[in-house]
Amino acid sequence: MIPLLFQLSLPPSIVPPDVVQQAATLRDLALSRTGAIEIVQSLTDGVGPRLSGSEGAQAARAWALSTLASLGFQNVHAEAVVEPRWERGVEEAEILSPRQRLVVTALGGSPPTPPGGLQGKVVGVADLESLRVLLAGDPAAVRGRIVFFTERMERTRDGSGYGRAVAMRSQGAKAVSAAGGLAVLIRSVGTSSSRLPHTGAMQTDGPVVPAAAVSAPDADLLERLLPRGISVRLSLGCRVRPDAPSANIVGELKGTGEEVVLLGAHLDSWDLGQGALDDGAGVGIILDAARILRSSSHPLRRTVRVVLFANEENGSRGGQGYALAHAAEAPVHASALEMDLGADPVYGFASLTGPEGRAATDAIFELLKPLGVTERAEGGESGADVSPLIPLGVPMLSLRQDASRYFDFHHSADDTLDKIDPRNMQQAVAAVVAVTAVVADMPGTLGRVPPQKPRSE
Amino acid sequence: MIPLLFQLSLPPSIVPPDVVQQAATLRDLALSRTGAIEIVQSLTDGVGPRLSGSEGAQAARAWALSTLASLGFQNVHAEAVVEPRWERGVEEAEILSPRQRLVVTALGGSPPTPPGGLQGKVVGVADLESLRVLLAGDPAAVRGRIVFFTERMERTRDGSGYGRAVAMRSQGAKAVSAAGGLAVLIRSVGTSSSRLPHTGAMQTDGPVVPAAAVSAPDADLLERLLPRGISVRLSLGCRVRPDAPSANIVGELKGTGEEVVLLGAHLDSWDLGQGALDDGAGVGIILDAARILRSSSHPLRRTVRVVLFANEENGSRGGQGYALAHAAEAPVHASALEMDLGADPVYGFASLTGPEGRAATDAIFELLKPLGVTERAEGGESGADVSPLIPLGVPMLSLRQDASRYFDFHHSADDTLDKIDPRNMQQAVAAVVAVTAVVADMPGTLGRVPPQKPRSE
Repeated sequence: MIPLLFQLSLPPSIVPPDVVQQAATLRDLALSRTGAIEIVQSLTDGVGPRLSGSEGAQAARAWALSTLASLGFQNVHAEAVVEPRWERGVEEAEILSPRQRLVVTALGGSPPTPPGGLQGKVVGVADLESLRVLLAGDPAAVRGRIVFFTERMERTRDGSGYGRAVAMRSQGAKAVSAAGGLAVLIRSVGTSSSRLPHTGAMQTDGPVVPAAAVSAPDADLLERLLPRGISVRLSLGCRVRPDAPSANIVGELKGTGEEVVLLGAHLDSWDLGQGALDDGAGVGIILDAARILRSSSHPLRRTVRVVLFANEENGSRGGQGYALAHAAEAPVHASALEMDLGADPVYGFASLTGPEGRAATDAIFELLKPLGVTERAEGGESGADVSPLIPLGVPMLSLRQDASRYFDFHHSADDTLDKIDPRNMQQAVAAVVAVTAVVADMPGTLGRVPPQKPRSE
Repeated sequence: MIPLLFQLSLPPSIVPPDVVQQAATLRDLALSRTGAIEIVQSLTDGVGPRLSGSEGAQAARAWALSTLASLGFQNVHAEAVVEPRWERGVEEAEILSPRQRLVVTALGGSPPTPPGGLQGKVVGVADLESLRVLLAGDPAAVRGRIVFFTERMERTRDGSGYGRAVAMRSQGAKAVSAAGGLAVLIRSVGTSSSRLPHTGAMQTDGPVVPAAAVSAPDADLLERLLPRGISVRLSLGCRVRPDAPSANIVGELKGTGEEVVLLGAHLDSWDLGQGALDDGAGVGIILDAARILRSSSHPLRRTVRVVLFANEENGSRGGQGYALAHAAEAPVHASALEMDLGADPVYGFASLTGPEGRAATDAIFELLKPLGVTERAEGGESGADVSPLIPLGVPMLSLRQDASRYFDFHHSADDTLDKIDPRNMQQAVAAVVAVTAVVADMPGTLGRVPPQKPRSE
């Protein structure tokens, strides 16, 4: 670590008044527009779902290349990556007695059941820890059984309930496989009470059993019936196919200098919905923000690079591929910011920079306050696609969006355009514009992020 | 008509204070219990969906006979009717370009598409009237086309938006068949923005084309894409099967006299959800109300007869069968009341009686006011199953429930137990108890309903 006194003696990165003034002007211009919803609509109506390796993902790349060009971006190109390909197929489940259909959806990466399905008694556990406790008492407790994880995701503004509940989705199928279980059902990781299950990735870096998410009302039913001793039949026709060629799609607003300010979102989506919120909204927000930055009175000092990442949902190959391909160029990355939490308003700002970034991020926070942004944090989260740049020293800027409603729709068939409030989304555009207008045009820098423990996303 | 002066000279049906007092006591007892939700849960968890002619409907009849007996009803029996049998099968739809899946569900009674589906250009119209206007200008306007009805149901407390929007569901497939069209899609008749379509009956008393409801987000998408000129492929595997034996299930609390007070709800449901609101709630409300009436300090003057009707959803054979079988007994039916609008609180009271019923219904309204019931109407609605008794002179009593949320779930997969607030439902039980305690025990009568134009339900 650099000694504290030396850190304090660094000249603070002052943001000149004309840069602040221009950022405020562009921020307010963003609020007066409705451009982001048009971009999301173009993507969701014209392409729709775009799961990695699918025809939709290919159509989305073509859409992105053409859209970036038509929006006036420069240096529009694709940067090849390879991504996993997993297909859903049939998904059916029922309780055998009393005979009741269960609405389920396979977790991404799940292996199929045998043809005709599998059948087993159901053991209910709250979460991974409860499973561990159960197995400690009886190592054979779930052998030949279907394990049902019942944990309920808590609705919170910061989305922290997701991080807590998602462990059963990520690791349940490995844990149950290790214990000799037959299959996994989880209560959907989501906050809606609708009869639509929420998919999502599961870890497949080891033996796993077939795994599916159950809609909330069906999870309620299963939980009520557990004391009766019930059996379930589960049929999943999903398939893992060979990896498929894909690409991150990149475009730039050229700056006068060498440095780059990265704005990211991910182009892929799950297959059930239309990926309007996840992450069509992020795509719409950053593209509209970058478009508005073109209205600046002069060319910015730094290049604004938009990156539409491949395969965020089930592999992160796009984010990892970008970091690998651009490792040598990492020192010219002045900052990175990713939008991937829907379309609701920004209420907080977090930054992970070198110590000399403090004055600039303070100035940015002042610019965000008129938008209703009230919370300020150091360090903190960054998107899954840009976090591989942290070990390379790239400063991270994060805009925290209100996630109270996001997990009602996230990863479900309900992720559709109507769930977006265009005015709310435009506030997020204005926030991205304010942040980027400062970091792309200020004379000083945010420094470099010191080495730290790798993040577990 | 009876001359007005003669009507006024009839002695008013005064409700004695002890009857009012007992009704108030039982009403308040109902509020202190939670019995209705337990009955609904027993039905939805133990049986689930129970579409006419299905195994579920058969299981529901067995459940009803056993539940009525265990709740202490007398004269528990089944009264045979025959009901239509229609099965759903596969249902798939997609827009061909841009290729987008549409979430659809067949309307009850729809014929299947040819194997492999049908395909056609889509013509959008707002409603039946718009279709008539279009055809007046060009009789060939929908020939060989799929007609998409776009009308949006309005959310209202009294549910009146349903009556307006449902015409396209009932009659669209006949109108389009008559105009040489290929198939019908309708925007779901419902108020939810979830990606779950709402089924419901369509008229099949003439040539019809295959017809399906589209979820609200998919209807939005279709509507946005209409100007591009789109084609849809639709595949429905539904089947009309031979009529099936069924029955209304009846139980009684025997009164000291000959007269009968009828409490009704319907036992059948659509197949997509679990029929918790439609009409498990009605079943729970009237059975719990009747159970609470057993706590009266003395036997009531009139028999309280609960009737769980068959086949309300797609044929009304239960209600018609009851009226036919009991026509000779109609004069001893002192009143009928059906609960079939979910589980939310009662806010209004309507009555259709002879003129001598005015004092009693005024007294009932006073008993309902402490429950928050503020609206009073004459005539008005009655349930589909009891309305065939109107031409037989049977007085109708109606409790208007708040229907603001009901059509979010109605006829969709989302009609599940978690959508019921047990406290709200118990208020409705208390209202049924208050009404019934008066009409079953007062010395006077509600008179007879004068002949009137048949209702169109």
